[in-house]
Amino acid sequence: MEKVKLLGTWPSPIVKRVVWGLKLKGIEYEITYEDHANKSPQLLKYNPVYKKAPVLVHNEIPICDSLVILEYIDETWKDASPFLPQDPLLRANERFWAKYSDEQVLPAVYGYFRKQGKDQEEARETTLAHLKRVEQLLNKNNFLSGERVGFLDLAFGWLADYSRPLEVVSGVKLLDEDSFPKLCAWRNKFLEIPAVHESWPDQETLIARFQKSKQTLFG
Amino acid sequence: MEKVKLLGTWPSPIVKRVVWGLKLKGIEYEITYEDHANKSPQLLKYNPVYKKAPVLVHNEIPICDSLVILEYIDETWKDASPFLPQDPLLRANERFWAKYSDEQVLPAVYGYFRKQGKDQEEARETTLAHLKRVEQLLNKNNFLSGERVGFLDLAFGWLADYSRPLEVVSGVKLLDEDSFPKLCAWRNKFLEIPAVHESWPDQETLIARFQKSKQTLFG
Repeated sequence: MEKVKLLGTWPSPIVKRVVWGLKLKGIEYEITYEDHANKSPQLLKYNPVYKKAPVLVHNEIPICDSLVILEYIDETWKDASPFLPQDPLLRANERFWAKYSDEQVLPAVYGYFRKQGKDQEEARETTLAHLKRVEQLLNKNNFLSGERVGFLDLAFGWLADYSRPLEVVSGVKLLDEDSFPKLCAWRNKFLEIPAVHESWPDQETLIARFQKSKQTLFG
Repeated sequence: MEKVKLLGTWPSPIVKRVVWGLKLKGIEYEITYEDHANKSPQLLKYNPVYKKAPVLVHNEIPICDSLVILEYIDETWKDASPFLPQDPLLRANERFWAKYSDEQVLPAVYGYFRKQGKDQEEARETTLAHLKRVEQLLNKNNFLSGERVGFLDLAFGWLADYSRPLEVVSGVKLLDEDSFPKLCAWRNKFLEIPAVHESWPDQETLIARFQKSKQTLFG
C-alpha cells in the first residue's frame, strides 16, 4: 500500500510544482500545510537541512527539493505521463533550463515585482532578457517540454500560475502579448491543464491573497 | 564516429568534475582551455547563457552545467561505470546532496579560505557544520555514492582535490583527521582513483599555482 504525503506551504509556487506533478501522474496523496512561523516537528525531522517545504514523504521516507522530487516521481511512477523524454540530450536540455528557472528567472521576476520606481526600471531589462530566452524555448511547441506538458513546464509553472495575479495586484505588466506571444499562449494552455486548473489556490484566490498582503509583497 | 570535446578553464574544480567523469567511463575526448579574460567565439556560441566552462560538445551539440553534463554522460554511455544507481530513492538522494555541494558547501568553503581573522572565525562554524553533514553521508561506505565512486563523489570531488592544496597554501586547516576521519579517508581514496589521480593539474601543480596567486586567492 503506497503512502504519499506532501508537506507544503501556502501559497508556494514551488510546492505547487510537486502538486501538479502528482496530479499529472494520477497519484493519490495527502497534503499538510506548514506554518512558516511555527514549523512542525515533522518538517524539522524530514528536512533537517533546509527546514522547508516541499517535502514528499513516500512510505515514510522523505525526499526534498522540488526538482529532485519531480525526477523522483517520474522515475518511481514511470508509466503514467512521463515528465522527461528518453533521449539524454533532451533530458539534459530540460534539466539545464529548469535550473535556469530557479537560479535566474525566478529571483529576477520576484525582485522585479518587489522593486519600485527607478530600481524596478533597472531590473526590467535583465528580467525581460531572461523571459525572452524562455520565449525562444517554446519555438513552435505548445509546451516547454514539447507537444505535451513535461518536466520543464512543471519547473516554469510558477511563471504561468503567479505572473497574472502578481501583475493584477501590483499594476505592473510582465508578460505582454506583443513582446511574449508564445509565453502568453503557453501560460493559458498550462493553466487549462486539469492537473493545474484543479489545483488550489486558483488564480482568484491568489489575487485575493496578494491583494491582502500587498504591503508586504510590494513594499 | 563519436566526437567529444570539452571546453574547460584551468584550474577549475567544476571542470575537473567532468574530466573525471569522462575518464571513469573511458570516453575519448579533446579538451580546450578557455581564457577567462578573453573568451573564445566557440564558448560564446556554445554557452550563450552563462558564457562559461565546462561545456561538453558531443557531435557538435553543446551541453552546459557540470551536474547536467554528468547525468548526460551517464545516460549516453550507460554501460561503463554507472554514476547513478537504478533505485529512484538513491538517485534522489545523490541529486539532493550534489545540489547541496554547489549551493551550500562550496561557497562556504571558498568563503572560509578567503576570509581573514574574525570573519574567518565566524565562517568556521557554518563551514564545519556543512562538512559534518557530508562526513555523516559516508556512514560505513568508502565513497559518498556507496562502495564504488559515483555521481555524488564526482560532485564533491572539488573538496577532495582542492582542500589540501588550499590548506597548504593558506596555512588554515579545514579537514582534520580527528573531526573528519571519514572525509579524510574518503579524500585519500578518491585521489587514488586512476581517473582522478591521472588528471591534470595534480596536487603539486595546484599547490604551486595557488602559491603563485596567493595574494588574489586569500587577500
